[in-house]
Amino acid sequence: MAVKHVTLFTEEPLYLVFGGQLQNLEVAYQTYGKLNQARDNIVLICHALTGDAEPYFDKASGQEGWWQHFMGDDLALDTTKYFFICSNVLGGCKGTTGPASINPDTAQPYGSLFPKITVQDIVKVQKALLDNLGIHHLRAVIGGSFGGMQATQWAIDHPDFVDNVINLCSSLSLSAEAIGFNHVMRQAIINDPNFAGGDYYDGQPPHQGLSIARMLGMLTYRTDIQLAKAFGRVTKSEGQFWGDYFQVESYLSYQGKKFLTRFDANSYLHLIRALDLYEPSLGYADTKSALARIKANYTLVSVINDQLFKQTDLRKSKLLLEQSGVSLTYYEFASDYGHDAFLVDYAIFEKPIIEGLARKAKNH
Amino acid sequence: MAVKHVTLFTEEPLYLVFGGQLQNLEVAYQTYGKLNQARDNIVLICHALTGDAEPYFDKASGQEGWWQHFMGDDLALDTTKYFFICSNVLGGCKGTTGPASINPDTAQPYGSLFPKITVQDIVKVQKALLDNLGIHHLRAVIGGSFGGMQATQWAIDHPDFVDNVINLCSSLSLSAEAIGFNHVMRQAIINDPNFAGGDYYDGQPPHQGLSIARMLGMLTYRTDIQLAKAFGRVTKSEGQFWGDYFQVESYLSYQGKKFLTRFDANSYLHLIRALDLYEPSLGYADTKSALARIKANYTLVSVINDQLFKQTDLRKSKLLLEQSGVSLTYYEFASDYGHDAFLVDYAIFEKPIIEGLARKAKNH
Repeated sequence: MAVKHVTLFTEEPLYLVFGGQLQNLEVAYQTYGKLNQARDNIVLICHALTGDAEPYFDKASGQEGWWQHFMGDDLALDTTKYFFICSNVLGGCKGTTGPASINPDTAQPYGSLFPKITVQDIVKVQKALLDNLGIHHLRAVIGGSFGGMQATQWAIDHPDFVDNVINLCSSLSLSAEAIGFNHVMRQAIINDPNFAGGDYYDGQPPHQGLSIARMLGMLTYRTDIQLAKAFGRVTKSEGQFWGDYFQVESYLSYQGKKFLTRFDANSYLHLIRALDLYEPSLGYADTKSALARIKANYTLVSVINDQLFKQTDLRKSKLLLEQSGVSLTYYEFASDYGHDAFLVDYAIFEKPIIEGLARKAKNH
Repeated sequence: MAVKHVTLFTEEPLYLVFGGQLQNLEVAYQTYGKLNQARDNIVLICHALTGDAEPYFDKASGQEGWWQHFMGDDLALDTTKYFFICSNVLGGCKGTTGPASINPDTAQPYGSLFPKITVQDIVKVQKALLDNLGIHHLRAVIGGSFGGMQATQWAIDHPDFVDNVINLCSSLSLSAEAIGFNHVMRQAIINDPNFAGGDYYDGQPPHQGLSIARMLGMLTYRTDIQLAKAFGRVTKSEGQFWGDYFQVESYLSYQGKKFLTRFDANSYLHLIRALDLYEPSLGYADTKSALARIKANYTLVSVINDQLFKQTDLRKSKLLLEQSGVSLTYYEFASDYGHDAFLVDYAIFEKPIIEGLARKAKNH
């Protein structure tokens, strides 16, 4: 089941929110399960920051997708029941056009010339993909973290297209603190001497900066409790004093290095900036008028000990959605995994996902 | 009131816990208030990671020390009542011998040759300073964060020397998560091309790495609540897309830059590693036997929303101290300032400090 590719915006370019345009956009996507006759079992999966179009692999393949333990027969994302579509986001580096793609104007990778992107642009590309596939209605849009923002925007921009929205571990906009963490990561990348202003594709990529960013990211995705349980203060048998001396350092270094094999620094920069910039109000009078457009049933799941999207912010989002008249089902759970819970802690998400997918359309 | 300097370990070198030795150690210190006739009003102040020997300046000077708002007439650190001593820590860069000091063997800055230091070594130097000043007993040792670890070690290593220990916002050892943050900071510094293995004193210092470390540090010292109140999602009027676009980014960048003017990267590396490594048990059978040596009254103040020294860890420390038979007074407060509260939120620390300094010796 290789990822499928389609070229979109072949006639008219995609005009981006911050200016700039992209034509002949490549989009990588994957589908799972079977479209039913009524065509009312289609679910769009929106991946998080560093995800891709393949949340799931056939067990026979030996590979695992990022939602491998949430998807499959009799799991919450039930492949016997629903027809799932997942595409790599605009600006990504997993098959959809992004900064590492070839710029037709220069026949070189876009690099520093890649235009600024927003969640709104990402959703436009997803919509064009569905149009291309002849899909005119969605049972649900589901996503965690950055994917939750995309799901929210879907329901705002296309209120009659979506019956249900499921947003896991994501608020309606990023906190100052989380922007701060992204700022530190960004500075680590752009100040890496190999970054070369973003045009590093013919040389060494900014690996030091990107691995520092990833290590910091990991710390915000997990919790002190989980790291204490997994590593505590245990030292390595032959640790290096300034390097991996404690086990937790070794774990972070490993995560930082592993990330380099699968992600592009420019994509990372563009996507974390899109995360910072996300505001549902963009293009509407204000946040409440944007949210008031939502006709879908909205499921919001908050993890109390999430250190990136904090409970305070999820509760603010809950209140805003309620005040805007959105039909909301709100859940709060504790998980030692913190923000990463939506990728690893299936037990707490099973019920909210099953219920969130099954709800009948409110307005159709 | 310029900082005073004294040279210690002139005859016998200081033998360090991790091996290595240092001779003719320079120590910068400052005193405040008047020693009373009974010589029972002496309080040692231990500074935190990036502090110095001057917590306080005379108002007429126009300068402010790092505990300016906690010290003075009628403040908790009452200069009319107590005689305070504060010295810059071993390994620091504010007058006490550290990696930027001249190595007598090479007539060059120590740089990469500076030996590994621990909190236990830092306390030995402070003890040598007090011996030199003819001080044989302390009313109290007080410190926040890294300073709280020093205060704890004082009471363990010199149980009859100290009547009271006041530890603000610090646990008995650092969590895996906090070690993780220090790891990210360390990697940012040592991978800065200017770091040159620590021997950068004749060239450009690793400013990019050090400012990244400081920005990350600031995020762990404050809280999401405080940053949301101070900056929210407000953007700059002329922000740079990859640089300071949001106000919170501008604030962090400013903090990162400001730090470069006052701190040495090698000192920072040595002190955060000493923070990681701190274990009261070092040199004793185990943590409880180390803690059981404490005769001082022990005041421990926890800030519930501290994001670096988390409540869980402070409560573990509380339990360990109690189980080891230490006479403990424990306080818990909420503060939007999180870990930084012990530097800025005077209101919540006033009572614990006043009471903690006033308590009568338990065993003398």
